[in-house]
Amino acid sequence: MQTLNVALGDRAYPIHIGRGLLGRAELVLARLKTPRVAIVTNDTVGPLYLGGLRAALEQAGVNVSVVSLPDGEAYKTWETLNRIFDMLLTERCERSTTLVALGGGVVGDMGGFAAACYQRGMPFIQIPTTLLAQVDSSVGGKTAINHPLGKNMIGAFYQPRLVLADIDTLATLPDRELAAGLAEVIKYGLIRDSDFLAWLEASLERLRARDPEALMYAIERSCRNKAEVVAADETEQGERALLNLGHTFGHAIETGLGYGEWLHGEAVAAGTMMAAELSRRLGWLAAGDVDRIEALFVRAKLPVWGPKLGAARYLALMAHDKKVEAGRLRLVLLHALGRARVHGEAALSEIAAAIEARCR
Amino acid sequence: MQTLNVALGDRAYPIHIGRGLLGRAELVLARLKTPRVAIVTNDTVGPLYLGGLRAALEQAGVNVSVVSLPDGEAYKTWETLNRIFDMLLTERCERSTTLVALGGGVVGDMGGFAAACYQRGMPFIQIPTTLLAQVDSSVGGKTAINHPLGKNMIGAFYQPRLVLADIDTLATLPDRELAAGLAEVIKYGLIRDSDFLAWLEASLERLRARDPEALMYAIERSCRNKAEVVAADETEQGERALLNLGHTFGHAIETGLGYGEWLHGEAVAAGTMMAAELSRRLGWLAAGDVDRIEALFVRAKLPVWGPKLGAARYLALMAHDKKVEAGRLRLVLLHALGRARVHGEAALSEIAAAIEARCR
Repeated sequence: MQTLNVALGDRAYPIHIGRGLLGRAELVLARLKTPRVAIVTNDTVGPLYLGGLRAALEQAGVNVSVVSLPDGEAYKTWETLNRIFDMLLTERCERSTTLVALGGGVVGDMGGFAAACYQRGMPFIQIPTTLLAQVDSSVGGKTAINHPLGKNMIGAFYQPRLVLADIDTLATLPDRELAAGLAEVIKYGLIRDSDFLAWLEASLERLRARDPEALMYAIERSCRNKAEVVAADETEQGERALLNLGHTFGHAIETGLGYGEWLHGEAVAAGTMMAAELSRRLGWLAAGDVDRIEALFVRAKLPVWGPKLGAARYLALMAHDKKVEAGRLRLVLLHALGRARVHGEAALSEIAAAIEARCR
Repeated sequence: MQTLNVALGDRAYPIHIGRGLLGRAELVLARLKTPRVAIVTNDTVGPLYLGGLRAALEQAGVNVSVVSLPDGEAYKTWETLNRIFDMLLTERCERSTTLVALGGGVVGDMGGFAAACYQRGMPFIQIPTTLLAQVDSSVGGKTAINHPLGKNMIGAFYQPRLVLADIDTLATLPDRELAAGLAEVIKYGLIRDSDFLAWLEASLERLRARDPEALMYAIERSCRNKAEVVAADETEQGERALLNLGHTFGHAIETGLGYGEWLHGEAVAAGTMMAAELSRRLGWLAAGDVDRIEALFVRAKLPVWGPKLGAARYLALMAHDKKVEAGRLRLVLLHALGRARVHGEAALSEIAAAIEARCR
C-alpha cells in the first residue's frame, strides 16, 4: 500500500492506493467520527464489492446503512440525489455519520455532494472503483450533479476525509471504462509531467493488460500530480483550471449527445484533440506533437474525433461552461507537451475551425 | 446608517442597517465582482421593492436578471430551488455573477443555497425585507431547503458578501410577520444579553408600533449578538448552537403541522416556552422567570402554547433534528434569563412532560 497526503491544512487527508484495501476496515475506522456509516453505491458496483466492505465494517462494530443508485451519468440528477437524502433521513443518519461513496465518478460526485449538503455537511469517504475515479474524480473535493443545460453545474467543493483506491476493483472494470480512465491519466502527462508522458508512451500496453504494478504506478503518479495541484489551488482560482484540459470541449460533447452516450473520459480524449489542434493553430504545438497525442489516445482505444454536432452547437454548449469569464471562453491549451496554460484570447472563429478540424 | 462587521477572516462582510438603503446602489456595487447580478425575490416582495432596487442598479451600469418565486415556507423545496438554477443557466450567469436575495427568510435561505451550489459557488448578497430575516436568517451563512422529513435538512454554510437591512421595508410587513421576527429578537436577550432583554421589556410596544428608532436599535443589537456568535463558531461546533433556543421544539411544530401553517418565529416562540418549562423542571429557571418570558411573548402577539400533536409525535419529529448526537437529543435550555447552554442529558420522559405542559 502506498499513501499520499493531500495537504489542505485542517482538512488534509490521506489517499491509500493498493490491493485488498476494501477488506481493511481499520483504514476506514481511523477516519470515522462515530461508528456509523451510510454507503452510497450503484447497481453495478454494489453486487461486486458492497458485501465485502459491509462485512468488514460490521465485524469492526460499525453500523452500516446503504442506498444503491442506478448506474450511469444519465442518473447524475437531482432526482437520484434525493434518493440519498431519503435514505439518510429514513435511517436517521446524523451530522456525525460518515457517508461512504463506493463506485465510480458518478457515485463519488453524487455521494460527495449529498455529504456536502446533508445537515449542511457530514463527513465523507471516497472508495473509487474505476480507474477514472481513482486517478481523478475522487481526489480534490469537486462534487456535483448535472443540469439539463450543463454538466456539473450544481455542486460544491467538499473534501473527503479519506480516499481508498483498491486496485483489485479494476479487475472487473469493462475495457471501455479502463480506456476512459486512461484519458485522465494521459492528461497529467500532457499538462505538467512530461516524464510521466514518456513513461506512458512506453507502458501503455502494460496498462491496457492491467498489469498491477503498472496500474499502481500510474495511479500513484496521477494522484500525486492531482494532490499537488489541489493543495495549491483548492477552489480553482488559478492553476487548478489546468486539470480541465479537453473538458470544456468534452462537456459540450457529453451535453450535446445526451449524458451517458459517451463516457466522460472518451469525451475528454476527443476534447483534448480539439485543444491540441487549437494550440497548433496558435503556433504553440508542432504538428508532430499533435500526432504524438493522437497516437497515445489511439493505443488507449480512445476516440480522437468529436461527433459532428456542428461548430455553432459546440460553441453554444461551451458558452454554458464554468470556464466562461466576462463572456469570453477561457480554454486550457498546451504550450508544449507537459505544459498547459489557460488562454482567454482565442477568436471564436479560430476555436470553431479547430473544432471542425477534429470532428468526423 | 449603521455598519457592523462579521469577522470571518477573508470572508468577513459588512451588515448595513438603515433607511432608504435599497436605492443606494453604491453599497451593492462596492461588493460586486463584476457588474452583473441575478436577483431572487418572491411574488409578494417583488412588486413592492424589486423595481426600485433594479432601477438603482441598472442606472449604475449593472446588468440585472430576475427570478420571482412563490411566497411561503411551503415552497422552500428542491422544485423551487431548481427554478433559480434554470434562470441562472438560461440567462448565462457566470461563476462571477452575484446572486442577490431580496425578501424574507425563505428567499434568503434558498437564494443563499442556490449561490452556494451554482457552479460550486457564486458571490451572494442578502437584502432582507422582513424583521426575522434582518435580525437572524440573513446573517451568518446558514442556507437550506426543507425535506418532507425535516426542516433545513439540505443546505450549506455559505457566507454572503454583504447584508443590506433597509428598515423602510418593514413598513409593509404584516403584523403577524413583525411578531414572528420579534421572537428571534427576544431570543438574543434570553440566550446571552440580559440588558437587551430588559430593554425589550421596556420597549416592546414601541417595536410593535414600528417606531423606526426602536426598530433600528433592536436590529442593530440583534445583529451584533449574532455576528459575535457566528464569528466565534461559524459551523456550529459549539456556541452557535445556542442560537437554536426553541428551534428543535419549533421545527417539530413546523414539520408536524406542515410547512407554512405556523410562521417560523411563531413556532420558535412556542418552542421557547417548552425549553423554558424544561429548564424550570431541571431546577434552572424559577417559575417567575418562565412567566416573564411568557408575558413578553404575549405582548409581542406570539403563541405561547404548542399545538396538541402529542408528545410522542413531537419526540419523533425532534429525533430527525440536526441537534441529535449519538442518538441523544441535544437541547438548548436556559440556566438563567440571559444565559443558555446545550444540554444532552434530559430524560425523554422529562422532555415529554415539558412538551405536554406547554400544549393546549
